[in-house]
Amino acid sequence: MSLLLAMTGWHVEDWRARFKAELPDMPVVILGEAFDRRAVHYVASWKHPPGSLAGLPNLAAIFSLGAGVDHLMSDDRLPDVAIARVVDPDLTTRMSEYVVLHCLMALRQQRRYDAQQRAASWEDDRNQPAARSVRVGVMGLGELGLDAVRKLRIIGFDVAGWSRSPKAVEGLATFAGTDGMAAFLARTDILVCLLPLTPDTRGVIDATLIAGLARDGRLGGPFLINAGRGGLQVEADILAALEAGALRAATLDVFETEPLPAESPLWSHPAVTVTPHNAAMSEPEAVASLIAAQIRRLEAGEPLEHVVERGRGY
Amino acid sequence: MSLLLAMTGWHVEDWRARFKAELPDMPVVILGEAFDRRAVHYVASWKHPPGSLAGLPNLAAIFSLGAGVDHLMSDDRLPDVAIARVVDPDLTTRMSEYVVLHCLMALRQQRRYDAQQRAASWEDDRNQPAARSVRVGVMGLGELGLDAVRKLRIIGFDVAGWSRSPKAVEGLATFAGTDGMAAFLARTDILVCLLPLTPDTRGVIDATLIAGLARDGRLGGPFLINAGRGGLQVEADILAALEAGALRAATLDVFETEPLPAESPLWSHPAVTVTPHNAAMSEPEAVASLIAAQIRRLEAGEPLEHVVERGRGY
Repeated sequence: MSLLLAMTGWHVEDWRARFKAELPDMPVVILGEAFDRRAVHYVASWKHPPGSLAGLPNLAAIFSLGAGVDHLMSDDRLPDVAIARVVDPDLTTRMSEYVVLHCLMALRQQRRYDAQQRAASWEDDRNQPAARSVRVGVMGLGELGLDAVRKLRIIGFDVAGWSRSPKAVEGLATFAGTDGMAAFLARTDILVCLLPLTPDTRGVIDATLIAGLARDGRLGGPFLINAGRGGLQVEADILAALEAGALRAATLDVFETEPLPAESPLWSHPAVTVTPHNAAMSEPEAVASLIAAQIRRLEAGEPLEHVVERGRGY
Repeated sequence: MSLLLAMTGWHVEDWRARFKAELPDMPVVILGEAFDRRAVHYVASWKHPPGSLAGLPNLAAIFSLGAGVDHLMSDDRLPDVAIARVVDPDLTTRMSEYVVLHCLMALRQQRRYDAQQRAASWEDDRNQPAARSVRVGVMGLGELGLDAVRKLRIIGFDVAGWSRSPKAVEGLATFAGTDGMAAFLARTDILVCLLPLTPDTRGVIDATLIAGLARDGRLGGPFLINAGRGGLQVEADILAALEAGALRAATLDVFETEPLPAESPLWSHPAVTVTPHNAAMSEPEAVASLIAAQIRRLEAGEPLEHVVERGRGY
């Protein structure tokens, strides 16, 4: 039996070496080279070409090489076998680094001071709000969202959370579902989006959502931070909201098209911070090790962990 | 009896209004206007002109309008009365906001991604260290330093502390005094300086200190963050270290001369972040309220809080 690596955009030979180190007895084959399709029991995928996993008669499980599985779900010829995500504890702390960093850049007006530095201007109105005067709203209260919430609260922010279904978190104001959205947005100065991409959440960050954000905050307008998935956002609406002043600034790690095309106006917009989809990345060695542990679990007759519910899409 | 406001660089009439609101029965006079020097029982000072507080025969106490008192200690004709600092709990959380923000900017290579954004370049070597792989060293383990340490550890950094005299902090590697300095610096990738300015600490951030920082870290060279006092740093040495590669980058909130002169090369150095001495500022209302509470305490025959030890200089 063998493990098939099916990825685009990554250095596949580096991944083969990592899996060989973890699973010395298992042949590791690569999409595009000649291999025995009947021998493939496992697939590790990152954005495989749609349809390319069809015709693997002995396939037992597909492993996503990242936390997201929307790249798998968009393949309508995906084999009907168990799918597991990577749950890397390190990835959670990386995401919180990113979220805390960009919430603090908003709070402490880093872009204003960057501009003043370029102008060699020493100025300060001494009217900076403290973190406790600024309301952060975290959308998505899974593992990533809850860790970010905890750390933002320790820094001092006034945090609330929104999730699809009701969720109680000690001491945290939480809102849920479509019914809870308006009240959640109305008390949000900095919106942090960590939702998974599903048919329900696609395009959720649009003009309507942005119009619902708080207008009475201390930051001179709402900030948006999207570190979830690019498909959650309508970039034309974000740009229009920035122009209209409905949004003060946006930090985007993810985009409708990635890599972000060179002609996108987001690159040069003075109120936009662009990062290349690296908010939370795992060390490749950790990912290979976590997937190898799952394969050993299956081989030992134990159940797979972190199995995706296809019906929910994540 | 009256309260004398003695400040330079701030809007003194705003401060008079704040103190009038807090202490409606106390006359508030201002240096430079005509007033009865015998009536002055209290002084609230921020960088008063040296010597200007001499000849106040009934003076009972001097209040610094900030956490630092070095601006008072540098006046060799300062009256020999009790001096109290402002201890604003909010100021501690503000300083930690600043320290966590700039440590995360270093960790997450924010300046690299800023430059890539300007070039519309989507690039990532996917070799970013996690916070736990980066060693932060905090110099100064007073109230500010300990709060910053706590929050940096929660974010995930590998933190150690240095103080003048030995200090035990649960779970924290601490170093003390001249003897402990070399070992402390040798394990420091990001140096955060929060020391008070005293004759002992003046110029401590010099070529020798920088040369002692870790060279084997994950950030490609050591980072310096000085949010203490400008007198702690030798700016010529910092610039030379940046040129020589002994320092990777510096974030400076304080300077040898403030405001930072327009001709300073620090403004335009690509590896330097300049902020206008606003890392930790109190809301003016909070400061007036805290000093008014101290005055009411004295008037009620109670002891003054947060008294400065002149011998130590802070």
